[in-house]
Amino acid sequence: MQLFYTPDIDASHPQYFLSEEESKHAIRVLRLEVGNEVQLIDGRGGLYTAQIHDAHPKRTILKITSVSTEFEKRNHYLHIAVAPTKNIERLEWFLEKATEIGIDEVSLIITQRSERKEAKVERLNKIVTAAIKQSLKAYHPVLNEPVTLNQLLDKPFDGQKFIAHCEPGEKLNLKDELVLNGRYLILIGPEGDFAPAEIEKALGNGFKPISLGTSRLRTETAALEACFEVNFLNRI
Amino acid sequence: MQLFYTPDIDASHPQYFLSEEESKHAIRVLRLEVGNEVQLIDGRGGLYTAQIHDAHPKRTILKITSVSTEFEKRNHYLHIAVAPTKNIERLEWFLEKATEIGIDEVSLIITQRSERKEAKVERLNKIVTAAIKQSLKAYHPVLNEPVTLNQLLDKPFDGQKFIAHCEPGEKLNLKDELVLNGRYLILIGPEGDFAPAEIEKALGNGFKPISLGTSRLRTETAALEACFEVNFLNRI
Repeated sequence: MQLFYTPDIDASHPQYFLSEEESKHAIRVLRLEVGNEVQLIDGRGGLYTAQIHDAHPKRTILKITSVSTEFEKRNHYLHIAVAPTKNIERLEWFLEKATEIGIDEVSLIITQRSERKEAKVERLNKIVTAAIKQSLKAYHPVLNEPVTLNQLLDKPFDGQKFIAHCEPGEKLNLKDELVLNGRYLILIGPEGDFAPAEIEKALGNGFKPISLGTSRLRTETAALEACFEVNFLNRI
Repeated sequence: MQLFYTPDIDASHPQYFLSEEESKHAIRVLRLEVGNEVQLIDGRGGLYTAQIHDAHPKRTILKITSVSTEFEKRNHYLHIAVAPTKNIERLEWFLEKATEIGIDEVSLIITQRSERKEAKVERLNKIVTAAIKQSLKAYHPVLNEPVTLNQLLDKPFDGQKFIAHCEPGEKLNLKDELVLNGRYLILIGPEGDFAPAEIEKALGNGFKPISLGTSRLRTETAALEACFEVNFLNRI
């Protein structure tokens, strides 16, 4: 069934008007007709089924036939803060895959050794939106504008905080540390890893050092591994 | 340290000659000089350190200074059989990531609903080789030529066999089924999933149906999720 992302939908209203662009797509491209069923997700947990009520190519009217709220609500909250990769495509695929597997919030952090100091959030957010439509996620992960690691470290976070780094020192495993159904913030460094001073500051701010296994992982793979582990452990 | 993939190396021989191409790369591009240290992996578990003995740009001679065998030998054997994705980049991405996380063998299977009926193994294998060099893996995963699902199902496999599919029916979880430190063969279907008759035949051939969670995953994401779960469970 065709699915539209409708963040501006009002659940209390029985009708929804597709934007001019989506109306054109629905009627001219998808050739939807009156009576055809479609699905809508609002990015806040709402999954709707609706019917084409007026197949207008510029202002298609949908009649909402059913609403489910908190659709597949996640039993935990995962916030991953990752340094944008030098090759932006690697960050893009992390965002697509993390959205498929399950993530709530992503922060892009600029670190001492970051080769990339910026990222176009609007463009990256389109990838996240495409991924929630493809994988039928009613919740749209939040993608934050880039901040420096220090800015992120200074922000309060009500939950467990972890940092994955490759420097020597004690490392914990998420399987032993994770409080299930909790809130987690996990830091993933750039290709050259966090600088020792950055790790020190994070540890000082209550981040626990974790290992993501013995393999040498690329930044985007480490971020996805963390995402995998948190979702998997909360499934067990 | 620079790392070279040297599948033809003879551990009993104190010297190794780089190929003309790699000699040129080492001396002209990397500007390595006599006495510089390099690492070599043979793809069979051997990790060597060597020194440039003769910085010849066409036949560089390396002097092997140390050998470790069974370097980071895996405690299990994972064989994933996956239908090549319509967009080959998605399969390439899976191969890179699975190599980083840990995999031993990949089979490409052509199924009833496969949109892609072929894949260039030589090209794909280059991606695997690049990934073992990047992630310092001494074992080179085996990538098999495409076969039909039936051909694969008829081949004997000495280990646990699983099929991940989205059709209704009983589904097991790897965390409950997996015998640790074992041998596993996991089937991952194409974008349109396996056909019911294919699933029937697999179940008849001793494959257990598994779920990879509630998320709707793309083919390459499902394959990586399976790879992740097997590695993670064998780490616990």
